[in-house]
Amino acid sequence: MDTSKDLAEQNLIAKILEAVGTDLLKAEQIFAEELQTDQPVIRDIHEHVSRFRGKRIRPTLLLLTADACGGINHNHHVLAAVVEMIHTATLVHDDVLDDAETRRHVATVNSRWNTETSVLFGDYLFTHSFHLASSLDSTFACRKIGRSTNVVCEGELTQIGERGNLDLTEERYFEIIDGKTAELCAVSCLLGAHYAGCTAEETEALEQFGRDLGSAFQIADDILDIMGEETQAGKSLGSDFYKQKMTLPLIRLLRQADPADEEVIRGLLANPSPENWEKLAPYIQEYRVIDSARQTANEYATSARAHLAKLPASNSRTILEELTEFAIQRSH
Amino acid sequence: MDTSKDLAEQNLIAKILEAVGTDLLKAEQIFAEELQTDQPVIRDIHEHVSRFRGKRIRPTLLLLTADACGGINHNHHVLAAVVEMIHTATLVHDDVLDDAETRRHVATVNSRWNTETSVLFGDYLFTHSFHLASSLDSTFACRKIGRSTNVVCEGELTQIGERGNLDLTEERYFEIIDGKTAELCAVSCLLGAHYAGCTAEETEALEQFGRDLGSAFQIADDILDIMGEETQAGKSLGSDFYKQKMTLPLIRLLRQADPADEEVIRGLLANPSPENWEKLAPYIQEYRVIDSARQTANEYATSARAHLAKLPASNSRTILEELTEFAIQRSH
Repeated sequence: MDTSKDLAEQNLIAKILEAVGTDLLKAEQIFAEELQTDQPVIRDIHEHVSRFRGKRIRPTLLLLTADACGGINHNHHVLAAVVEMIHTATLVHDDVLDDAETRRHVATVNSRWNTETSVLFGDYLFTHSFHLASSLDSTFACRKIGRSTNVVCEGELTQIGERGNLDLTEERYFEIIDGKTAELCAVSCLLGAHYAGCTAEETEALEQFGRDLGSAFQIADDILDIMGEETQAGKSLGSDFYKQKMTLPLIRLLRQADPADEEVIRGLLANPSPENWEKLAPYIQEYRVIDSARQTANEYATSARAHLAKLPASNSRTILEELTEFAIQRSH
Repeated sequence: MDTSKDLAEQNLIAKILEAVGTDLLKAEQIFAEELQTDQPVIRDIHEHVSRFRGKRIRPTLLLLTADACGGINHNHHVLAAVVEMIHTATLVHDDVLDDAETRRHVATVNSRWNTETSVLFGDYLFTHSFHLASSLDSTFACRKIGRSTNVVCEGELTQIGERGNLDLTEERYFEIIDGKTAELCAVSCLLGAHYAGCTAEETEALEQFGRDLGSAFQIADDILDIMGEETQAGKSLGSDFYKQKMTLPLIRLLRQADPADEEVIRGLLANPSPENWEKLAPYIQEYRVIDSARQTANEYATSARAHLAKLPASNSRTILEELTEFAIQRSH
């Protein structure tokens, strides 16, 4: 465990809570009120799921963006709950897809209850997020959220379709992470900016910021999946390898390896096992593909910061810059 | 196969197509346009799913209601596509829940592709239906559809939670079918009426009509599941029995049986097998629970028609009355 990294993270969290902590709480209340129900089984699952919801990155982005763009209002609290609810729905369904038993050290819904319940509870969260979005005055948020969730699902469907395809191109990989991760970050920032009364130009810059940050974040996640940090991410090591999901380091490894190595690496990737995971490690080191992926994550982070620079300086803008830095530092 | 029943059905379908056939086609076009995609895998699944979509009951209800209430406009075509898309999403997810291999004699998405694809494709349909609903001018439809889909999911979650509970009460059964079937019929009629410019009172009557019709329809379906008609419904005989879903005839069977019979019946219901299904048949006959359930379906149909009577007479109103009659006649 790297203590200086932990300290930096705690420091950042403290700054976020100081800036938008009460707003995050208001969003949390709206989230809970929307899901209030008489059905005990639904209450149980909801309570259970809230234990693995994690860092509230999307509502945090939405609220910080709103603050940096002119101020947070009630629409933002509602929308922060909406994006968090959509993200939670995708987590619940992801765990069905991955047949995962734990997330953040907590049993998943499908291992604690069953697949049926996971599918329906994910649907329940999806439909509630739309219901909540439709409580605003205009259809703007519904349209944006509708479109974004289409893109998220399309990204995930593509990822499933490409599982086991060792010849996945970088272009296709970027398409997938744009859908499954960057899109929801992008729309969070867009909604934060729009409902704070930003200009169309600023709103677009913020959407781009969210998109680049999301991609940087996902690449860092894919690196962490190879490098470890079991305790921090609460995920198993090499899970992408075992699920035959080709991530940026692995795509580059195959592309850069000389023909003899490439053949061996293909064999290892095609037959995921603990022994083959061990055998893969020296190749990952030799071809320095982690550094190369980090470099790409850095480029996304730099681009994200350039979009932010279009806003006037403010405390929340500074925190968004630090969040961008943190997204990639995690993988170092 | 009962030929007179088939003729009546064909006759009704011909009347529906004459009244709203071009509108159903327009809704179909909007449905297809909304799902247009570059991703070949999504195109394939969409094409496949359209083969088991069935009778378009919900869009038909929406359009006939609109016509009976003053006239069909573009909003209705969009909303007819929306309710059909939501219904299709629930079918795709139901097949995951039931682990079904065929629906209407066509392989389900999870047997043809896999569970992951079914879950994501269902989500994809859900998010597209919301996106489509948000293309209208106001948030009215989004709010109504958001709320209805919440109720649908809650009904299905309750059904899953109650599976295997032989002591399910009638009250709870009616709650479940209200959520899983009646709610979407109710909102279809509500939207048809509202966007045709009906009064609030008429709109509420139409919503109640849809709700009662949906319940009548579901009870008839539950009877058919016991009585057969494999070829027409495209479902397997006794599937509720095998999945330990307590339906109205089975609930009444347990309640009405004398103590000795009740014990035997409990044993059969608790251990679903082809032999036990055979053994159950004489009890179902003896206690006349099919007639009793039919009687309840009739009461719902009568109530549905009473709500319809609040509208001025019209060709579409007559067809809605006949549709109500057909919903229960199927089970005779």
